[in-house]
Amino acid sequence: MAEQERDDSGGLVRLLPVRATPPSLNDNTGDWERLQRAVERDLGAAAASLVVPWRRAAAVAAAFRENGFAGVAVLNEEPGRLELVDLLPAMPACLPVMALDLGTTHLEAVLLDLVSGRELARATRKNSQLEFGEDILSRIHFATVESGLQRLQQAVLADINALAAQLAAAAACQPATIRALAVAGNTAMGHFLLGFDPYHLCREPYIPQVNDPPPVAAAELGLAIHPAAPVRVLPGVGAYFGGDLLAGIVACDLDLAAEPTMLIDVGTNAEVVVGCRDWLVACAGAAGPALEGGVAKMGLRAGPGVVERVKIAADTGEIACQIIAAADGSVPPAKGICGSGMIDLLAELFKTGMVDIRGKLQAERLGHNLWQTPDGPAVVVVPAGEAADGEPVVVSQLDIDALMRSKAAMYAILGTLMEQVGLPFTELGRIHVAGAFGRHIDPQQAVTIGMIPDLPLAVYQPLGNSSLAGAQRYLREAAVRRRIGEVARKITYIELNVNHDFMIRFSGSRFIPHTDRSLFPSVPYQLPGREASDHDNSNPAPTVNDD
Amino acid sequence: MAEQERDDSGGLVRLLPVRATPPSLNDNTGDWERLQRAVERDLGAAAASLVVPWRRAAAVAAAFRENGFAGVAVLNEEPGRLELVDLLPAMPACLPVMALDLGTTHLEAVLLDLVSGRELARATRKNSQLEFGEDILSRIHFATVESGLQRLQQAVLADINALAAQLAAAAACQPATIRALAVAGNTAMGHFLLGFDPYHLCREPYIPQVNDPPPVAAAELGLAIHPAAPVRVLPGVGAYFGGDLLAGIVACDLDLAAEPTMLIDVGTNAEVVVGCRDWLVACAGAAGPALEGGVAKMGLRAGPGVVERVKIAADTGEIACQIIAAADGSVPPAKGICGSGMIDLLAELFKTGMVDIRGKLQAERLGHNLWQTPDGPAVVVVPAGEAADGEPVVVSQLDIDALMRSKAAMYAILGTLMEQVGLPFTELGRIHVAGAFGRHIDPQQAVTIGMIPDLPLAVYQPLGNSSLAGAQRYLREAAVRRRIGEVARKITYIELNVNHDFMIRFSGSRFIPHTDRSLFPSVPYQLPGREASDHDNSNPAPTVNDD
Repeated sequence: MAEQERDDSGGLVRLLPVRATPPSLNDNTGDWERLQRAVERDLGAAAASLVVPWRRAAAVAAAFRENGFAGVAVLNEEPGRLELVDLLPAMPACLPVMALDLGTTHLEAVLLDLVSGRELARATRKNSQLEFGEDILSRIHFATVESGLQRLQQAVLADINALAAQLAAAAACQPATIRALAVAGNTAMGHFLLGFDPYHLCREPYIPQVNDPPPVAAAELGLAIHPAAPVRVLPGVGAYFGGDLLAGIVACDLDLAAEPTMLIDVGTNAEVVVGCRDWLVACAGAAGPALEGGVAKMGLRAGPGVVERVKIAADTGEIACQIIAAADGSVPPAKGICGSGMIDLLAELFKTGMVDIRGKLQAERLGHNLWQTPDGPAVVVVPAGEAADGEPVVVSQLDIDALMRSKAAMYAILGTLMEQVGLPFTELGRIHVAGAFGRHIDPQQAVTIGMIPDLPLAVYQPLGNSSLAGAQRYLREAAVRRRIGEVARKITYIELNVNHDFMIRFSGSRFIPHTDRSLFPSVPYQLPGREASDHDNSNPAPTVNDD
Repeated sequence: MAEQERDDSGGLVRLLPVRATPPSLNDNTGDWERLQRAVERDLGAAAASLVVPWRRAAAVAAAFRENGFAGVAVLNEEPGRLELVDLLPAMPACLPVMALDLGTTHLEAVLLDLVSGRELARATRKNSQLEFGEDILSRIHFATVESGLQRLQQAVLADINALAAQLAAAAACQPATIRALAVAGNTAMGHFLLGFDPYHLCREPYIPQVNDPPPVAAAELGLAIHPAAPVRVLPGVGAYFGGDLLAGIVACDLDLAAEPTMLIDVGTNAEVVVGCRDWLVACAGAAGPALEGGVAKMGLRAGPGVVERVKIAADTGEIACQIIAAADGSVPPAKGICGSGMIDLLAELFKTGMVDIRGKLQAERLGHNLWQTPDGPAVVVVPAGEAADGEPVVVSQLDIDALMRSKAAMYAILGTLMEQVGLPFTELGRIHVAGAFGRHIDPQQAVTIGMIPDLPLAVYQPLGNSSLAGAQRYLREAAVRRRIGEVARKITYIELNVNHDFMIRFSGSRFIPHTDRSLFPSVPYQLPGREASDHDNSNPAPTVNDD
């Protein structure tokens, strides 16, 4: 998203100063047609496709007349045509538009100014649909009950309206001045927002009702931004490959890359794309929950008071934690652990021999860090005395098992994808890692547990919220809007749910770092306590119990 | 509107049978995109512009799936694109669409079947806006008072809904099955229907807010036909030159004529076009009221019980009337006189010397036909004993004066227009006369009073409701939709309200047949009683009192 690449004239909404000769007895052109001709003079080739929506025609024509047959036309780029939706008396100082990452658990939005290109405000909000289902599958089920889909839709519309109000307040403007909304989200969230039936998304062969949603005006959808604001839900490629990932692809210019490049986005699912300007292959699979705070009992999203880094002293076995500070710089007592903290913890437990290569807690090595709970053994990450509300932060064997499945799924997804494209990992010049996962994890630790391939650490590049970044570029750059469509057409999507190669790879990946240790040369073989679990290595199970 | 010219494939709404391979794990195309691709295969060049309106996407995709990924797509032709708005399980036997002539006093509609091309039903209805103003000017004034425009709009929407219900009942279908509506009306009526501000229509320089209205869906406008039915108000050229006249031009193929041809449409205004495939010139003026039943005290629109023909015996002075029969063939007692009856009457009065060349009643010639009223002299057309409710049908001097102004305006309009295009009347190979006026008048009598030029009678061709005929062709023929736009662009409109030549011609035309008798060689000079008014001819007043 380099500044020099931004094309201000390519905004989804454009401003065009216009002036026309006033009507006379020799020129009885209608007020709307007078404006139309004045705009067409400046548009060149695009002129033939200029239209005014019926709902806007009277207001636009009246404003043009009131303003002495001059003003600034507001033009929305629609598929195959330009819609003139407003006529302002003068060039506005600011043209706010909203980009939204519509996540399953959180919504994150940015208010952009298309005039200056600046970010005006940023806001996040929990997805109110959580009330109807924690995960996408339960919401899809909820959508099938009477008025369920409508309630899901109303919830997300209310969330967007609340975010718009929040952004507008922060930018000292009115929500009604927001002139466009670009939404990047997974396919199910897009269906909920637009009222499309998600029933077949989770049923083989996993077909969306709509992959490339038609544009809709804010007023028609029920959004409290400018009534004529175009609402664009970015296209997806399949049930498990939504507009959020397409947004990510264009956000990191993967579709323009000269050499093979990878994008990993871990949210509720792990979604992975590999490709370059010539080809793109993608797949997605359930690998995320343990990393998103959805599975571990103490698991939380990264935020103040959450453990994000863990270090275990090889000699004393002392566990030291880094806790995310609050906005004011103070560090609150620990109340949970996020995905990057979990990965750190597992890597450190492995390096100190406190777990074996199956990820099983080793009681004799853990010592005082071990805590027996009714559900089985657990490791105390932050003792009660240092934790919030006197509640120790513990990670149980069950939590670690979940993480083991996630990391195995992740590595299997990456391996399966590379197998499909016929390239070794070493051919990848860059791996963009999106989201909180990319921002917070230590790639070395993720390599240690065998979650991601053992490549030079500089290959891994954190990307931030690539879905939101892509939505912002979608609003600002005509080239990105064109590219999104091209990417959707040229990408090949591999369905992992029915992929045999994936299942084999998944099994081999359920060890730390892997059954095939040659894949992870940088991970030391001789670890403290290794001798205690040597039998594991001598007997690499082709399958493991799914405990 | 010859049958061989109709192009069924060119309907504003099209049906396209489609079938697609069902989804599989190897083909995760979305349901909508699957339908889109199936339609695009059959569309050829038009495929690139295929869209689905957001409101229809879910229903269309669901219907396609329910029907086993086959069916019949319903496509609306929109400016620059095709909208897929429905998916039917099978080819329907009938595709009803509605054409409407939106008149100031009456609405006339036809229900067409786009499958067979047949007319299914026809209906007329009084314009409910009459409650808010008899004529357009008073309604434009009413529109400026609070919520006036809304009330006018609601009135006409209710009228259209009532007509749709009436047509559907006659065709044994539901109004919701009507898939399109084309409306031809004057510019003010178009503004009222679409909620455009008509304020400047009647104020110099007479500018419409919108000349070429954008399309709108029935549901959006509030019409109770199919919600996705496109509502198209045909474009106009100016405040006094609406879509009704453009419809008339294409209805008689004037824009395709090899030789100069004229179209006269007398409604509330007289609207006249002259031209051929190379050029078109038009003008309009107030000439109609006396002919439409709006001015004469006994004036009515043509209908049962109305005098449409008058004959006066040269020897006895007896007035014989032809009265329009009822639907059952019976002839009711006379209750009024229509425009054609008025023209007949004036021609007969002139030929028998009962009026002079100024149109003044001659008491000594009228004899027992004369009736003195508090408002002045009148002629008894049907005596009380033969008339409805014992009320004689009388035409007063005031009524005749109004007709004299109308006929003068008409001839002046025609003359001014021909002067502008630099051709004599004799160059016109054909004159199409639209509406009730064209259907009912006897051209010979209209020539006699100097209302229309003295040409061979075969030149005059009645055209019927050309506005309605044009709207029907607009629905059926892609070529006509294209031509309407071309006509709107190439027509030159002359504003008579400020035309000096017109005013001079108007004065000369306020005599029977004209001050310049050489213009009317077929009208006999020596008439009974002519000698009594010779002084008029010897003193042809350059201006007359506007009594």
